[in-house]
Amino acid sequence: MPSQDAIRAAADRIAPHIRRTPVIRLSPAETGLENPLTLKLELLQVTGSFKPRGAFNRLLSADVPKAGVIAASGGNHGLAVAHAASVLGIKAEIFVPEITPEAKRARITDAGAQLVVGGANYNEARLASEARAAETGALMVHAYDQDEVLAGQGTVGMELEADAPDLTHIVVAAGGGGLYGGIASWYRGRAQMVIAEPEECPTLFMAGLVGQPVDVPSGGVAADSLGAKRVGDLAFNVMQEVGGRSVVLQDQVIRNAQRWLWDRVRLIAEPGGATALAAVLGEAWTPPKGARIGVVVCGANCDPATVVG
Amino acid sequence: MPSQDAIRAAADRIAPHIRRTPVIRLSPAETGLENPLTLKLELLQVTGSFKPRGAFNRLLSADVPKAGVIAASGGNHGLAVAHAASVLGIKAEIFVPEITPEAKRARITDAGAQLVVGGANYNEARLASEARAAETGALMVHAYDQDEVLAGQGTVGMELEADAPDLTHIVVAAGGGGLYGGIASWYRGRAQMVIAEPEECPTLFMAGLVGQPVDVPSGGVAADSLGAKRVGDLAFNVMQEVGGRSVVLQDQVIRNAQRWLWDRVRLIAEPGGATALAAVLGEAWTPPKGARIGVVVCGANCDPATVVG
Ligand SMILES: Cc1ncc(COP(=O)(O)O)c(C=O)c1O
Ligand SMILES: Cc1ncc(COP(=O)(O)O)c(C=O)c1O
Repeated sequence: MPSQDAIRAAADRIAPHIRRTPVIRLSPAETGLENPLTLKLELLQVTGSFKPRGAFNRLLSADVPKAGVIAASGGNHGLAVAHAASVLGIKAEIFVPEITPEAKRARITDAGAQLVVGGANYNEARLASEARAAETGALMVHAYDQDEVLAGQGTVGMELEADAPDLTHIVVAAGGGGLYGGIASWYRGRAQMVIAEPEECPTLFMAGLVGQPVDVPSGGVAADSLGAKRVGDLAFNVMQEVGGRSVVLQDQVIRNAQRWLWDRVRLIAEPGGATALAAVLGEAWTPPKGARIGVVVCGANCDPATVVG
Repeated sequence: MPSQDAIRAAADRIAPHIRRTPVIRLSPAETGLENPLTLKLELLQVTGSFKPRGAFNRLLSADVPKAGVIAASGGNHGLAVAHAASVLGIKAEIFVPEITPEAKRARITDAGAQLVVGGANYNEARLASEARAAETGALMVHAYDQDEVLAGQGTVGMELEADAPDLTHIVVAAGGGGLYGGIASWYRGRAQMVIAEPEECPTLFMAGLVGQPVDVPSGGVAADSLGAKRVGDLAFNVMQEVGGRSVVLQDQVIRNAQRWLWDRVRLIAEPGGATALAAVLGEAWTPPKGARIGVVVCGANCDPATVVG
């Protein structure tokens, strides 16, 4: 797992290229919940998700070959890599599965990357991208299972602790586990990690049950962001070391959290971006009395009409 | 004009009921603009606009009669008064004009207030509400032209200066001028005020030209938030004392700013909420070299489909 120093170094490296996203506090009086919430507004990040943190850190840590970079992604990682490559003047090729929504595809090509639709789901796209990388020699930027990626995502935790040092629990959505792994590596037990996953793609939950990373189905409303086939080894190791309680959520609870964010805070979050909040609003997890809860709202790349319409 | 002490007192009074809204900084590298921008995300305020600041301050400063409170509003002020009254256990009657969108009407009745459609535009609704207040003895909460309202809106400036002490220019949208007047009263010349108004309802611009508050047409895309018939006396006096440059914007430039906010920052703002940003993105105003610009993004009560669709 990345050290705090590695995360600090990542923060310095990526600072010129990412936004310091703010937090907003919601009191029990206004939410009707027992505990105060601190939302980390990472959906306001460049490209609409936290993903550029890891992508920039990986690109700025490596010697990029002439063939450029390559990535496979449900959308947000691909968009982040496309954006980072464009800012840094590097060629990028992005493999997406068929389920990637048009809104995400358009943004990837707008950023100047080559878009390849490579298979029915994220895993097929990943395999296609690996074959292609072997062919061209391009640098692979993994969506979650690389040290530099975890260190980059860990800067979310570093900022959150600086802005809200008193939090006892950090709730974060997981697919491959890069965001969770990075943030947990920052906190190292100073706050408890709560991992929010859809019932239809519970990678960390299943890995925890089985005792090792295993393949899971990857469907449901958040599949385009949380639909990794299995958790990354790095994130799994972080979970073994620092722990983290996994909370599994129904699609409807995620949809409700999206609607709540618009009705109460005027934020549009995509399903994966609202999944951590769903763990707090739904009944799947009861936080202990006195908990001060940080919630990472981490993505907004959807059509708002799917939230409000 | 309210003193800084009056604004500080307002901040203390309303603190339990409003959100400390955050700022986000956008660098020239990412916006392509000459100057760094600091957005004050006041659209994330309770009820989706800055209006509860003034409404709570007015209600908490007064002896509210048994007949409760009454307000006239294009929507956001009415919603804020309805919300504040509901939180404080007070009866509220809200007069809106016919142009008030359904999204705003529904939120007002959801907050438990009595909704009355009172005329074709804001001014007619205001006259109707005054007649009704004379009849019932209810406390009038003016949308902009009351000291307590200005002091409440001034807390936006107080927070903005605390979070971004180095700003040289503060850009703010104006209708009746309560938000401008409050913020300008806070800054008192420590930063220059830039007043953003639609061409189709330029209340402060015209008052500045004529040398006193005068009636103006009130149409265009932002009429439901910026469509006051004339600037309030309080705001006009503030403009005489501390100055403020008025920038007049075409509807299309406001629409473009709404779209830009979604594309670049994943925020949905209503037309009046994006008008200050429009002054920065459009060509109507050229900030001086070295300016550090604060932009108040102040409302989000619209259907997102009108922005993204
Ligand atoms: C919005 C959003 N949230 C959460 C995740 C999950 O991140 P990770 O795969 O690092 O667990 C993703 C991944 O794409 C995402 O786009
Ligand atoms: C979103 C929004 N912006 C700006 C304004 C203008 O405020 P003022 O009338 O205080 O100038 C309003 C007023 O309703 C508003 O709702």
